[in-house]
Amino acid sequence: MAYEFKITRRMEFSETDMAGIVHYSNFFRYMEAAEHAFFRSLGFSVVTQQVDPPVGWPRVHASCDFKQPLRFEDEVEIHLLVTEKKSKSLSYEFRFRKLGAAQAGEIARGRLTVVCVTRDAQGKMSATLIPRTIADQIEVAPPELLAM
Amino acid sequence: MAYEFKITRRMEFSETDMAGIVHYSNFFRYMEAAEHAFFRSLGFSVVTQQVDPPVGWPRVHASCDFKQPLRFEDEVEIHLLVTEKKSKSLSYEFRFRKLGAAQAGEIARGRLTVVCVTRDAQGKMSATLIPRTIADQIEVAPPELLAM
Amino acid sequence: MAYEFKITRRMEFSETDMAGIVHYSNFFRYMEAAEHAFFRSLGFSVVTQQVDPPVGWPRVHASCDFKQPLRFEDEVEIHLLVTEKKSKSLSYEFRFRKLGAAQAGEIARGRLTVVCVTRDAQGKMSATLIPRTIADQIEVAPPELLAM
Amino acid sequence: MAYEFKITRRMEFSETDMAGIVHYSNFFRYMEAAEHAFFRSLGFSVVTQQVDPPVGWPRVHASCDFKQPLRFEDEVEIHLLVTEKKSKSLSYEFRFRKLGAAQAGEIARGRLTVVCVTRDAQGKMSATLIPRTIADQIEVAPPELLAM
Repeated sequence: MAYEFKITRRMEFSETDMAGIVHYSNFFRYMEAAEHAFFRSLGFSVVTQQVDPPVGWPRVHASCDFKQPLRFEDEVEIHLLVTEKKSKSLSYEFRFRKLGAAQAGEIARGRLTVVCVTRDAQGKMSATLIPRTIADQIEVAPPELLAM
Repeated sequence: MAYEFKITRRMEFSETDMAGIVHYSNFFRYMEAAEHAFFRSLGFSVVTQQVDPPVGWPRVHASCDFKQPLRFEDEVEIHLLVTEKKSKSLSYEFRFRKLGAAQAGEIARGRLTVVCVTRDAQGKMSATLIPRTIADQIEVAPPELLAM
Repeated sequence: MAYEFKITRRMEFSETDMAGIVHYSNFFRYMEAAEHAFFRSLGFSVVTQQVDPPVGWPRVHASCDFKQPLRFEDEVEIHLLVTEKKSKSLSYEFRFRKLGAAQAGEIARGRLTVVCVTRDAQGKMSATLIPRTIADQIEVAPPELLAM
Repeated sequence: MAYEFKITRRMEFSETDMAGIVHYSNFFRYMEAAEHAFFRSLGFSVVTQQVDPPVGWPRVHASCDFKQPLRFEDEVEIHLLVTEKKSKSLSYEFRFRKLGAAQAGEIARGRLTVVCVTRDAQGKMSATLIPRTIADQIEVAPPELLAM
């Protein structure tokens, strides 16, 4: 049973904008990268179809509070925490922290809610129960961790 | 005095992902494009320095609720509404609607809070009063519009 | 029979980088947007399956020479020209020109070669003849235009 | 003196498109990431101003030949080789290879030519000699390596 995961990544030139900082839309790409790495850490891919029928995880909510900017070549730790586990959806929190920074301040904090879906022959998605093999490995982070 | 603005754009191939739908991070790029077009409609650019000292508008909060997917070549209207106007910040809501769609359902609804800042010689940003020439042209949308 | 097409687009903030100019990778997104608009102008979508079996157009070559930078809010014309038409592939040239610029200098010139493919049940692509209904509408631009 | 460098990266969901493969524009982002990691391996950043006056490296040419597609979660090695070193410019070749793939086929091969520039007070760029401290560390790859 897992409730958290951490990745680090280095900010790239193509992710900066003319204000000299990482464009805010990229934080949502980073959150998703952390989510997918979390799934890999459990032995799953969000895409490879290890469950039958195959499921997908469209986002129904995404948000982020930005506290300090990130710049080119900054190394950032993204800490994923599971905040909610329902029968058909999962919610995550993501805490961004700059590695090697003198002061420990948080860079940003984001949230994501994803729904487990199957698709019919026309590609239309409908919510479905999270497969047991996946659900059994994921739990909500302890309250004292979420309160930080 | 303006409190709303609409843009339309067509979803591009490079904005889709392997799930066959527009990747959710792009909605945040679209919101910003609407915000910048709103500024242009007022005779300002968010970047060209028509005020002295020049100001910037970093995002402190961004969120989006996704209700229906967008696909390649969909034409979408993005309706910006000013939801809050403070001395140093502005908040917007963005309503995504597919053009030409049989049913009128909303695709997504997003929110953005931006802070007016100046930068010192080292590039460090600090919040500042929204310049009069800009603030005088922007007002909060009427409650009945925001309630929809 | 068509051999050229023009689109215009305004450079967006999220497309700039910390050097203050449009990141070069975006020029390849713009070329593709022009290609897809060209197809729409012929009554086709590169994706909607108006031919049977459906075909796709993966890129086998892409290049661009960059002469002058583009900046936020620049309005750019992208002029697509068909440079080669083979039984299973098409090649295009793209000329980037800034609208409203005092001097008429070219911003960039790119090239794209795309191959017409079908996919088998496993998703494996193989080159196929360009469907007649598409091929009949596309011709190579006249040499005097290509020589410019 | 260095003439090559290798990085690996895992393909991300947000980099795929509705054809189920990595969008071709991303290969140009990956090439640049390899170039910047090469500079870091020499003790430089392409941005941090360790030389006086500070220099930048705008791209004047970029190209790529695509041989096989990349998919979500593929791990890819990008092998940078210095192909040309002039007084004011550098050219690189980039060879993309999928890690762990049964057959050793190349995925793609790209090229980049970058020019060393300084900027005047208005931001206008002009080509300049590559600073000695940088030029002294870079050499062209041996012909037998480039011939592969």
